[in-house]
Amino acid sequence: MLAYPKELEDLVDKFSALPSIGRKTALRLSFHILSLPEEKVTSFSESLLAAKKNVKTCSVCQNLTSDDTCSICHSKNRDDSIICVVSSPKDVITIEETGEYSGKYHVLHGLLSPMEGIGPEDIKIKELMARLTDNVNEVIIATGSTVEGEATATYLARLIKPMGAKVSRIASGLPIGSDLEYADNITISHAISGRREM
Amino acid sequence: MLAYPKELEDLVDKFSALPSIGRKTALRLSFHILSLPEEKVTSFSESLLAAKKNVKTCSVCQNLTSDDTCSICHSKNRDDSIICVVSSPKDVITIEETGEYSGKYHVLHGLLSPMEGIGPEDIKIKELMARLTDNVNEVIIATGSTVEGEATATYLARLIKPMGAKVSRIASGLPIGSDLEYADNITISHAISGRREM
Repeated sequence: MLAYPKELEDLVDKFSALPSIGRKTALRLSFHILSLPEEKVTSFSESLLAAKKNVKTCSVCQNLTSDDTCSICHSKNRDDSIICVVSSPKDVITIEETGEYSGKYHVLHGLLSPMEGIGPEDIKIKELMARLTDNVNEVIIATGSTVEGEATATYLARLIKPMGAKVSRIASGLPIGSDLEYADNITISHAISGRREM
Repeated sequence: MLAYPKELEDLVDKFSALPSIGRKTALRLSFHILSLPEEKVTSFSESLLAAKKNVKTCSVCQNLTSDDTCSICHSKNRDDSIICVVSSPKDVITIEETGEYSGKYHVLHGLLSPMEGIGPEDIKIKELMARLTDNVNEVIIATGSTVEGEATATYLARLIKPMGAKVSRIASGLPIGSDLEYADNITISHAISGRREM
């Protein structure tokens, strides 16, 4: 059986191991790499190493940073009394893009999922609890409205409330621009129970 | 505007530059890289360099190889008198997988495409012509049945025929397992004109 040269097969294997990349895509990507000038390949290879080596988590909020603490944590313009809890660094960027929020964040790096064996010790809950000093008035739980997101929210609310901080949950309901006929029953029932006076 | 740490943004840019990888996928891949143990990232980075450095084209048939000539070109069991012309190294693998062909190959590394400015000098036609010695009885043109594939086939046939070798073209017609109702008109008309006595 003929195969590609082993260095190419090896690269295809490496690409295939990435999430959502099948063998066909991995082959196309590998051929693309072969077609690039050598300095571009070197630079890609160096970017991989640099990202792995220099990107760390912020020692306070666990967001990604290349310093010890992230730019939000050491900013003087952010409200120290509110912490918005999200599951991943992507969510921080998503919320920042709205421009609506000026408090601090806490990144859990995951959600509770008994099915997958992910318990409270596996995500950054201990680090969140350590931040809940008297100065913090509100914790906004901005995990997704999935089963795991809701379970994590409920768990955190039970843990945080006795410590005196107000705990709130981002609203779930109809996405903007959506018709009722395209929404599922659970979304509609949440939208009704979460209705606000106009 | 908050962004990811610059080393991460840089990696996202590198992934985004690959074909069919958009920014969202590039982000997912980059986060995956961050989650890998350091030795896996190092090994990925080395694979990129090794593939670029060691994978060359065979000096005879232009297929990919890590030696000077590929395993098919220096095999004693392959028929020297037939050359199958394909557009890319992937096609060699595809044909080898059928187990139906025991001749040699020639990889053009592209197809003629006046629209994209790809002329005869841009693909490995010169190298093919140099191989057409008296020993070669047949050239099978196995480019795809796209506009570019057909144009390249016609161009090569005109070039090769005067040199005495028989030139053949792989059949186009109904794919096996397909119903007529799902085939387009051009495929059906090719299938009819290319009919064979049973």
